[in-house]
Amino acid sequence: MHFGSDNCAPVHSRVMDALIRANRGYATSYGDDTIMDRVRARLRELFEAPEAAIFLVGTGGAANALALATYVQPWQAIYCHRNAHMETDECGGLAFYSGGATLALVDGSQGKLASEALASAISATLQGDVHAVQRGAVSITNASEAGTVYSCDEVAAISVIAKRDKLPLHMDGARFANALVSLGCTPAELTWKSGVDVLSFGGTKNGLMGVEAVVMFDPAHAWEFELRRKRGGHLFSKHRYFSAQMEAYLTDDLWLNMARTANEMAARLSAGLSAISGASLVYPTQANMVFVRFSRATHRRAMQGGATYFLMPTNTALEGADDEMLASRLVCNWSTTKEDVDEFLDLVRS
Amino acid sequence: MHFGSDNCAPVHSRVMDALIRANRGYATSYGDDTIMDRVRARLRELFEAPEAAIFLVGTGGAANALALATYVQPWQAIYCHRNAHMETDECGGLAFYSGGATLALVDGSQGKLASEALASAISATLQGDVHAVQRGAVSITNASEAGTVYSCDEVAAISVIAKRDKLPLHMDGARFANALVSLGCTPAELTWKSGVDVLSFGGTKNGLMGVEAVVMFDPAHAWEFELRRKRGGHLFSKHRYFSAQMEAYLTDDLWLNMARTANEMAARLSAGLSAISGASLVYPTQANMVFVRFSRATHRRAMQGGATYFLMPTNTALEGADDEMLASRLVCNWSTTKEDVDEFLDLVRS
Amino acid sequence: MHFGSDNCAPVHSRVMDALIRANRGYATSYGDDTIMDRVRARLRELFEAPEAAIFLVGTGGAANALALATYVQPWQAIYCHRNAHMETDECGGLAFYSGGATLALVDGSQGKLASEALASAISATLQGDVHAVQRGAVSITNASEAGTVYSCDEVAAISVIAKRDKLPLHMDGARFANALVSLGCTPAELTWKSGVDVLSFGGTKNGLMGVEAVVMFDPAHAWEFELRRKRGGHLFSKHRYFSAQMEAYLTDDLWLNMARTANEMAARLSAGLSAISGASLVYPTQANMVFVRFSRATHRRAMQGGATYFLMPTNTALEGADDEMLASRLVCNWSTTKEDVDEFLDLVRS
Amino acid sequence: MHFGSDNCAPVHSRVMDALIRANRGYATSYGDDTIMDRVRARLRELFEAPEAAIFLVGTGGAANALALATYVQPWQAIYCHRNAHMETDECGGLAFYSGGATLALVDGSQGKLASEALASAISATLQGDVHAVQRGAVSITNASEAGTVYSCDEVAAISVIAKRDKLPLHMDGARFANALVSLGCTPAELTWKSGVDVLSFGGTKNGLMGVEAVVMFDPAHAWEFELRRKRGGHLFSKHRYFSAQMEAYLTDDLWLNMARTANEMAARLSAGLSAISGASLVYPTQANMVFVRFSRATHRRAMQGGATYFLMPTNTALEGADDEMLASRLVCNWSTTKEDVDEFLDLVRS
Repeated sequence: MHFGSDNCAPVHSRVMDALIRANRGYATSYGDDTIMDRVRARLRELFEAPEAAIFLVGTGGAANALALATYVQPWQAIYCHRNAHMETDECGGLAFYSGGATLALVDGSQGKLASEALASAISATLQGDVHAVQRGAVSITNASEAGTVYSCDEVAAISVIAKRDKLPLHMDGARFANALVSLGCTPAELTWKSGVDVLSFGGTKNGLMGVEAVVMFDPAHAWEFELRRKRGGHLFSKHRYFSAQMEAYLTDDLWLNMARTANEMAARLSAGLSAISGASLVYPTQANMVFVRFSRATHRRAMQGGATYFLMPTNTALEGADDEMLASRLVCNWSTTKEDVDEFLDLVRS
Repeated sequence: MHFGSDNCAPVHSRVMDALIRANRGYATSYGDDTIMDRVRARLRELFEAPEAAIFLVGTGGAANALALATYVQPWQAIYCHRNAHMETDECGGLAFYSGGATLALVDGSQGKLASEALASAISATLQGDVHAVQRGAVSITNASEAGTVYSCDEVAAISVIAKRDKLPLHMDGARFANALVSLGCTPAELTWKSGVDVLSFGGTKNGLMGVEAVVMFDPAHAWEFELRRKRGGHLFSKHRYFSAQMEAYLTDDLWLNMARTANEMAARLSAGLSAISGASLVYPTQANMVFVRFSRATHRRAMQGGATYFLMPTNTALEGADDEMLASRLVCNWSTTKEDVDEFLDLVRS
Repeated sequence: MHFGSDNCAPVHSRVMDALIRANRGYATSYGDDTIMDRVRARLRELFEAPEAAIFLVGTGGAANALALATYVQPWQAIYCHRNAHMETDECGGLAFYSGGATLALVDGSQGKLASEALASAISATLQGDVHAVQRGAVSITNASEAGTVYSCDEVAAISVIAKRDKLPLHMDGARFANALVSLGCTPAELTWKSGVDVLSFGGTKNGLMGVEAVVMFDPAHAWEFELRRKRGGHLFSKHRYFSAQMEAYLTDDLWLNMARTANEMAARLSAGLSAISGASLVYPTQANMVFVRFSRATHRRAMQGGATYFLMPTNTALEGADDEMLASRLVCNWSTTKEDVDEFLDLVRS
Repeated sequence: MHFGSDNCAPVHSRVMDALIRANRGYATSYGDDTIMDRVRARLRELFEAPEAAIFLVGTGGAANALALATYVQPWQAIYCHRNAHMETDECGGLAFYSGGATLALVDGSQGKLASEALASAISATLQGDVHAVQRGAVSITNASEAGTVYSCDEVAAISVIAKRDKLPLHMDGARFANALVSLGCTPAELTWKSGVDVLSFGGTKNGLMGVEAVVMFDPAHAWEFELRRKRGGHLFSKHRYFSAQMEAYLTDDLWLNMARTANEMAARLSAGLSAISGASLVYPTQANMVFVRFSRATHRRAMQGGATYFLMPTNTALEGADDEMLASRLVCNWSTTKEDVDEFLDLVRS
């Protein structure tokens, strides 16, 4: 019953097999391996974007920071949700990579940027006033940190606001696959067709060992990205092992199937919890994460019974009044089983 | 006959096996996995440094940049060899990570920093003069980019010069194992016992998939390093796969045995080439790299016969006068075979 | 009737005289002039801080950014008021100088940091969690951007909160003299005796041409500051003209007298406006700035009658409904006269 | 007899007068003063560059760093002379402002970049190789740090080399006036007509209090420069005092006349020294600086006799063997008199 994070889950066996296959003889280093040629072609096909520039890096933090640093200037603001990963979990990596760009935090319910709040934050930035930080880019996370999903229409609506000021739109897709299977649309529809300019296409949280792709739908900044990646120490010499993971991921819909399983397990968990008196969902469950609130006594029982997950906010303590209601986050992943879910539900129910 | 780079070689099967073993069930993420506990203990034991702070990152560029950025201020100079990897091959990564520190390039024959040149470069830096960049740190590469090795005494001599100004001494050990087996000393002797403060302990070029350790013999800067690593996007969530590689590397002397093979193959290649009239070594062969000069016609024959390696400098062309003498670099690795070497020697001889 | 900004006012004639006196013959450059020796001694005496490190720079933005960059690390947060000058008016200069430090915006009424909001912002920062930006420093502005003043007790209360986490406390004193004469306390009482570690001691807004002092009560970081100042291009070669301005400023209480005049004129203006029906103060008037709200029609009449000042927020338009109430900022300075004030009051009244 | 630096000299009285004139009443701040409108027009006329973007800053370090940071990327190299001010005297300011750009040091006799050395340094930069720092810009100093002057033809020859790789050409003109009067050409001829893209137009060393102009002949980067200047804390609020200095400087050829005097005094000093047995010039005297070598005993006598100047390199000591020959730098300025020069010559002769 491990619902701590999709980052704690193992790697899919087909990915391990691909690594073993890739481990034969010599291969050109630094991204010039032949597997990467196929990965590029496959991602362009998937995204219906024959011109897209595509790069692999090892962490989501690197993907986001390198992608956005390529699109914003140091004196610009990136509009993102107050709870965006880049604000709360990357130790200021974006300021580092961009040379000091600012995150302009925008509100929005259910972990999603509200259009009006975004529009108002953008117009509060005094564009053309030399004293003020200037408008830079918009970044949204899909699926969001609250486990909710922006529909294509919602993405497009945000893009319309961004494009009024010619601001590029970045999507942090650490859980892109989860969003996609939740919506049932195509990768292209959820990205460039809805106005996304650059995507962090996650793999690590969804069954890979540690690979994310950056997809730039307009390749104009490709060379700059390459230099930034190298300079940041994120160009891996034995790159074939990155390529091999990504190739396996994209083969026979493995990525979609893993995300589907994770989402289904979250839906089962969410449905089960909803039916329990004393438990209430914090956010609707739309991807692979369930946010639920129940009493401290119940949390204590669940954890003592062997469940692993986080209380929210993360510095909330298990010690305290039994009947205080505490929020928690439960994350499902490709390897979560019905038994995991049902055992957990039993623990909470008892 | 692939002598292009140790980065083009495959991963040792025992490392792959370790990855597969590590891939069972859930593991704590972000460096708190139990394998990492063992890796820390093992490296401290190996280096006879029970207090050392130890971190894993994915690339040598990240290891060097993060390690040195932790020890120097933005307004300081890092004294390194004119051909150091951080000068020629990391796209200015050190300036990026350090916020603008300068590489002060020092001469020295056979790819090694000359003590006198170092002393004179340090004293040319006007310490205490606010107009001038200040003294920061010294960095040496062992084995060097010329395939030569600093002895413990040579390291100690450089350390004495650095310590006069209280400058920390960094060792870029991307090929540390190759240096160590070449010298036959202990890891402690080649590092802190000779005055090294922080080591980039390479694994990738020596049979791993992509893992380097940073070993800080004094743990005072450990927390700063962790924050810098995270901020730089170099803290991997599924860290257990880094740990597992490093654990396999250090088990049953795998790391030393792989380096020994690489060095032996280089020695065999070097001896064979020395005996060929028209071929001359550029540097003595002390680790796993052979630098040799012979005619363009011979290079052409070797490459057409299936050998892969680089001409030096890297923009040298194969087109041109047949009898012009061209330098080249041939790198051996843990998977290089006697047959590879002998076949290459036959090609050159013929 | 110019109430636009204290930055639009002229330089006091005694300061101009000092510049002319300083302009005789040769002087040592880069801060080693003899006038600066006297300035240092005088400021140490004034602040009862014989060990303080003291530096002059040309702009308030440079003073703030250099001072705080010396005290915080790139991965740390500076807690400041949501409307602090460094957030709204320095184009991200702090992120630039600090290598990416974050401004953590804290609420508080009347332009002043609320203690509870500060305490809660600090504890929301997950100190010791490598994923999160860490706690860095606290900065308050006195007099504030709302023309209000922190009392010594209020400063001390904020310092107590900062010191719980060993966070340095910075005071942006662009209008320090205005705060001081408003409170009637000593410079020491308003700074280090109340827990301030480093002060941006303003001169430009109060009758100088362009000089601010940075006063570090503990000189431990003095050399680092000097290097940062030089590296930032803020060490002026003909430094004697900075020193001369500051010397004149501190002679015969010129600085206090200029601030007193400015405050008195603001008080007169504030009292006059309060008595006018249809006008209401936005903040209490405690220093040299008056924030007042009256109808658009009245603003139009005042401006057409020759008054210069800003509507707040600065992008508010004069065009629109006559009876809409619009806030505005009126700034007095050392050269503001009773006639200026009374003429303005007449305009508003009529 | 002060030949220490042109930075130690006073400000011309016509500049002081202009400051006093500018000090009447209120003026718009932050560069929007009416004097600045005239300065812009005058500089555009002088340089025959009606489109040029023009900005004032307070120090040469700021002018150089801001100008070049606007033209290069963090991963690029700036080719400059080994003894360029930005390498030796700005504490790494360029790396700071540019986010880590590298100074690629090029040799050249008499303080001037040698064309062949430049061409060879540029081609040694592996453009298009992601591992290497990329080509960025070329910067030359005119008059140079050795007191020599690039002719228009020499500038044009360097520009041709730079333009082959589309590299912008920057001129550090801290002593631009001295170069100009030495050559007798027009400002346009020495700059854009010879291929210069951006000029640091010095004033401080030539009779101003502390003002330099940045002249960008193509205004495409003007807004970026403004934001960089503001963010760097170099946009002065009471800007009219910068404008007033520059206006006085350009009025009635004051700038040229001051430079002419300085150059003439240097020529007189140089001629006098050349005639003294035991003294030898280190570089030809082409602007306002004389580099001369004579015995330590003579230096001691000169300094004890009241002369102020620097031994070169600056850490050379007066203590030591009497007959050792020591190089020195003597700088003349607009206020240097024939009496100063002749008195010094007498001291050396005696």
